[in-house]
Amino acid sequence: MDILKTMETALSELHEAGNYRVFAELERHCNDFPKATFYDDAGETRDVTVWCSNDYLGMGQNPVVTGRMTEIIQKCGAGAGGTRNISGTNHYHVMLERELADLHDKEAALIFTSGYVSNWAALGTLLSKIPGIIVYSDALNHASMIEGIRHSRCTKRLFRHNDPEHLAELMAADDPNAPKLVAFESVYSMDGDIAPIEAICDVADRFGAITYLDEVHAVGMYGPRGGGVAEREGLMDRLTVIEGTLGKAFGVMGGYITGPEVLVDFVRSFASGFIFTTALPPALAAGATASIRYLKESSAERDAHKANVAKVRAALNARGIPHMENPSHIVPVMVGNASKCKWISDVLMTDFGIYVQPINYPTVPVGTERLRITPTPLHTEADIRHLSGALCSLWSQCALARAVA
Amino acid sequence: MDILKTMETALSELHEAGNYRVFAELERHCNDFPKATFYDDAGETRDVTVWCSNDYLGMGQNPVVTGRMTEIIQKCGAGAGGTRNISGTNHYHVMLERELADLHDKEAALIFTSGYVSNWAALGTLLSKIPGIIVYSDALNHASMIEGIRHSRCTKRLFRHNDPEHLAELMAADDPNAPKLVAFESVYSMDGDIAPIEAICDVADRFGAITYLDEVHAVGMYGPRGGGVAEREGLMDRLTVIEGTLGKAFGVMGGYITGPEVLVDFVRSFASGFIFTTALPPALAAGATASIRYLKESSAERDAHKANVAKVRAALNARGIPHMENPSHIVPVMVGNASKCKWISDVLMTDFGIYVQPINYPTVPVGTERLRITPTPLHTEADIRHLSGALCSLWSQCALARAVA
Ligand SMILES: Cc1ncc(COP(=O)(O)O)c(C=O)c1O
Ligand SMILES: Cc1ncc(COP(=O)(O)O)c(C=O)c1O
Repeated sequence: MDILKTMETALSELHEAGNYRVFAELERHCNDFPKATFYDDAGETRDVTVWCSNDYLGMGQNPVVTGRMTEIIQKCGAGAGGTRNISGTNHYHVMLERELADLHDKEAALIFTSGYVSNWAALGTLLSKIPGIIVYSDALNHASMIEGIRHSRCTKRLFRHNDPEHLAELMAADDPNAPKLVAFESVYSMDGDIAPIEAICDVADRFGAITYLDEVHAVGMYGPRGGGVAEREGLMDRLTVIEGTLGKAFGVMGGYITGPEVLVDFVRSFASGFIFTTALPPALAAGATASIRYLKESSAERDAHKANVAKVRAALNARGIPHMENPSHIVPVMVGNASKCKWISDVLMTDFGIYVQPINYPTVPVGTERLRITPTPLHTEADIRHLSGALCSLWSQCALARAVA
Repeated sequence: MDILKTMETALSELHEAGNYRVFAELERHCNDFPKATFYDDAGETRDVTVWCSNDYLGMGQNPVVTGRMTEIIQKCGAGAGGTRNISGTNHYHVMLERELADLHDKEAALIFTSGYVSNWAALGTLLSKIPGIIVYSDALNHASMIEGIRHSRCTKRLFRHNDPEHLAELMAADDPNAPKLVAFESVYSMDGDIAPIEAICDVADRFGAITYLDEVHAVGMYGPRGGGVAEREGLMDRLTVIEGTLGKAFGVMGGYITGPEVLVDFVRSFASGFIFTTALPPALAAGATASIRYLKESSAERDAHKANVAKVRAALNARGIPHMENPSHIVPVMVGNASKCKWISDVLMTDFGIYVQPINYPTVPVGTERLRITPTPLHTEADIRHLSGALCSLWSQCALARAVA
């Protein structure tokens, strides 16, 4: 079949560019994060330490979460049994939506099957159904926002990454009466930099735009109650919509938006990606609610996490391993070449029992391939020494540039 | 804010047309399906019998499924902790993909966070990345397929619902050398009719097209091993791609495609909606695998289900309640007016403890509003009598036409 030939060719090109992805097959060990069993190609297993999980705080093994999920499975069963409209709205969805509205101090919240779907469906709906709306999108926004914007086919302006002045320039050039929406993230997940939220909101206000902030990599992590960077900076009320995930720091799965009642009701009523799909299992909703509540009260995980991030950075510095400086919890160790990056990752796995996935195109631009290290509060001092030692020895073997102190 | 005003107006229009949706807040009772606790607006609760779930066989409360989920939560924790590429591929995802490939007798399978995402991402990717491809889409295809096709911006032809001759006409009029894909469903969920799969595959073969079949409402339900209508009719090898959900008859959540190795690898490598999102929790993957395996072996649920569907139809016939005839398990009781449909549904809930969601626009065309009744093997004879009696009394009160025997 010609069609399959076309696909074969495209896959060969990926192989040649070193961008073909092989997924590491793991079995995470509850009560023993960040350890996992790794299954190699031959089906042989060995224990490894995971250094690239987005279960940033280890909430995926917190008994408050796993216990609640187990309880609700026993009580309500496995799945929701329907779309939200047709028998699929469970009491635990409603409770979760209340909890999320409270977390971000908004009138209402709406959950989706994932953070990806929340961005795609919410932006796709808002931008296609408000006549004449113009979206201003940060140049490094996540794929899910880009797809939602693309879906809407509205007028789009890209502003330079984290650049409120460029945003203001673009807005000044547009019709002052056109409705406007500014879409951006707080923590950018691959470089770990953080948006100037206040300055962006100032510009948005000046031009009468509504604002949409993706806090996917920040919820649970920043702010006294885990409300994200906007909470930490006292800016939650400046954002029209705050979007987040239940699948990273909260340790479960699912996504959401929070915002004004009417906006949330609008998305609920018109978003195809919300309406025409089976709702989250009640146990996931209940587990996520337990996780949010726990992290509202407890800062111990956030504090231990910050301390470990600092320790990892210091250990890498001591060994001269170059990593991108940033104000967040993400430690990108730059390699800059897809094949080398994959080679390092493979050797870390086979020779050192360390798992860090190589990050390549299309997740990051070609030439900026990296190991994206995400410390958790559960990594020990020994884990950190083992990681920095392993990287040091590979850096020498691979003739990669050292960071100069 | 002007933008919020626009939304308010759109919502008022929904209210006026009787299309504003109010979700019924439920708490399903594991070990006691189809019973659930209903929470009314005032927060008062009462027990109801659910008659509109898509957990068609009650697998959501099968101990094989709930037990396995509980076990894997204890073993691997709550969430996957990452995207499939970045630490999120769990052993139980790999096992599930093997199970699904086997179920449909295909080389490979790929799971997604939902059936919606599987259609959107797979069709969106296939149709945007094969140069010059033309898609032939059944006029009544599900929203998730429509959005995937729309996303791709490829050339699209709509063929009349379940009409292979029209499909052939359209294909004959197009460039014989253009790559072609035919997208359709087996069981259409709102009317319950079933596609002429063989005739459609014959046409596709004649014009060298690949075929994509959504078996979301059929997997687990039809065929000796629950492989769907294509399995029942011995046609699985005629389909290039078979797509399904883990959230309906299998009782959990998630979606998938199965097909040739190279096609599945292509979607895995290029689909944004697959790549950039947290993977399914391992426990969901393991629970779904258990459900599929169970239904491969056991036909008891399918048999009891068929018997109950027949009993419901007979009871409605005996009372003169008009329902759409079809060869599937879905029993659409036609009302044809959004407000009346909602009124009947409200009274069923409050006066009879029966929950059937009214189905209105945009799920079905205006004027074809209905109560979509989905019997399960778990409904008793008493449940069926109670339902048909309640509908009978409402039919009189509401002055709705009777079916003439
Ligand atoms: C910035 C950003 N937004 C949204 C998402 C999607 O969230 P989810 O994983 O819940 O689909 C991700 C990553 O997965 C992300 O990095
Ligand atoms: C025909 C069809 N395809 C796909 C879907 C989406 O599947 P899921 O609920 O798993 O998202 C649905 C309904 O939800 C459907 O009716």
